[in-house]
Amino acid sequence: MTGKLYGVGVGPGDPDLLTLKALKAITTADVVAYFAKMGSKGTSRGIVDCHLPPDTVELPLYYPMTTEHHKDSTVYKTALRDFYAECEDRLRALLAEGKTVALLSEGDPLFYGAAMHLHVRIAPHFDTEVIPGVSGMAGCWSAAQQPICQGDDILSILPGTLPEDTLVEALSKCQAAVIMKIGRNLPKVRRALDRAGCLSRALYAERGTTAHQKIIPLADRPEDDAPYFSLILVPGWEDRP
Amino acid sequence: MTGKLYGVGVGPGDPDLLTLKALKAITTADVVAYFAKMGSKGTSRGIVDCHLPPDTVELPLYYPMTTEHHKDSTVYKTALRDFYAECEDRLRALLAEGKTVALLSEGDPLFYGAAMHLHVRIAPHFDTEVIPGVSGMAGCWSAAQQPICQGDDILSILPGTLPEDTLVEALSKCQAAVIMKIGRNLPKVRRALDRAGCLSRALYAERGTTAHQKIIPLADRPEDDAPYFSLILVPGWEDRP
Repeated sequence: MTGKLYGVGVGPGDPDLLTLKALKAITTADVVAYFAKMGSKGTSRGIVDCHLPPDTVELPLYYPMTTEHHKDSTVYKTALRDFYAECEDRLRALLAEGKTVALLSEGDPLFYGAAMHLHVRIAPHFDTEVIPGVSGMAGCWSAAQQPICQGDDILSILPGTLPEDTLVEALSKCQAAVIMKIGRNLPKVRRALDRAGCLSRALYAERGTTAHQKIIPLADRPEDDAPYFSLILVPGWEDRP
Repeated sequence: MTGKLYGVGVGPGDPDLLTLKALKAITTADVVAYFAKMGSKGTSRGIVDCHLPPDTVELPLYYPMTTEHHKDSTVYKTALRDFYAECEDRLRALLAEGKTVALLSEGDPLFYGAAMHLHVRIAPHFDTEVIPGVSGMAGCWSAAQQPICQGDDILSILPGTLPEDTLVEALSKCQAAVIMKIGRNLPKVRRALDRAGCLSRALYAERGTTAHQKIIPLADRPEDDAPYFSLILVPGWEDRP
């Protein structure tokens, strides 16, 4: 008897943007697991707060560190690999007992999500299913009521962690773009948008679809700091009626 | 007294992939509107079949034509502009009466969706809201259990309608890609993937998340024809564990 792992996308932030399928998975699972920073509740866990029954068995998976070391450093990579291996062991023990486990992801699980690190390790050994979610970027462009792309537009999704020149080149080859993982990368991202001629139509979006949503033209936000989960939208469809 | 227009994303195909918010919007709206080809039910309408109450007032909006003329021809463009203007008039008449109208979109409304043509015309005059949906591509990569991008990957969304050389260049500048609008463009898309060195890892996906889902390596599908709403996934995260 073995259990099943559900990778569950919980959407961009508004609890009503969970899918029916995600709601069923998280309310019927034996265990609800999620990543979180030590001392915090976890973004994905916060989104489902109003949906989880009071007797839910929870398994928070606390990251060993997040910002103390550079993401390409050996110490960071080793710590993260050990952490995923430990998480894998904990999930495999539950699955071997026949438990169903819902592993939450903010947005969509297979789109830049951390949960895919566990999914690919566990899928060869146990029954698994991925429940897609509304992405954070779709939540933001919908909240802004800004069509992001249409017709023959190329839409590029760019991590803000990339070098400035790479961002400029990529922005110059597409009609629409979303820049993810802004955080401390904002000054560099702003320069890249300016050099690529996209700054005037760029929107800054933070906590889209939540009560704390902030969506404004980037040009109206001179500050250099931003939360990691904020993003920049560069809408395409420039010949709209 | 004026009504409200909801642009409602109904997700990739599985009716359980509607969001709670979309379900509420379509079951409480005075009128449910959707685009369809003449003689067909409409993709978005089909997805919500099991959710709509029997007494729902429906407004199908039938396209004047779809494939008889090239999309860049004057006759096609004029017919489509007239069609959208007529749809706008019909929706505005309902909204002026105080009705709430839910305009359905398969996938997400502002991501290559036709509904945005009406949204941008109506938003300046009436109260509007956009409810994001799970995209068709997220439905497909989740059904395939294929992480699409991770870390510093660039993900490019490319319409299959683009010229072959444009596709090759775009594919060579990203780590992950989704090619939309395949249909009669499949032979060209296949050549572009081959030239860019991505053919061996490309997946062909059709009707993902529905009972008629077909997801196979593109290399295993030699046929040259495909439905318009099929897509190609080129997963990134090449150093996955």
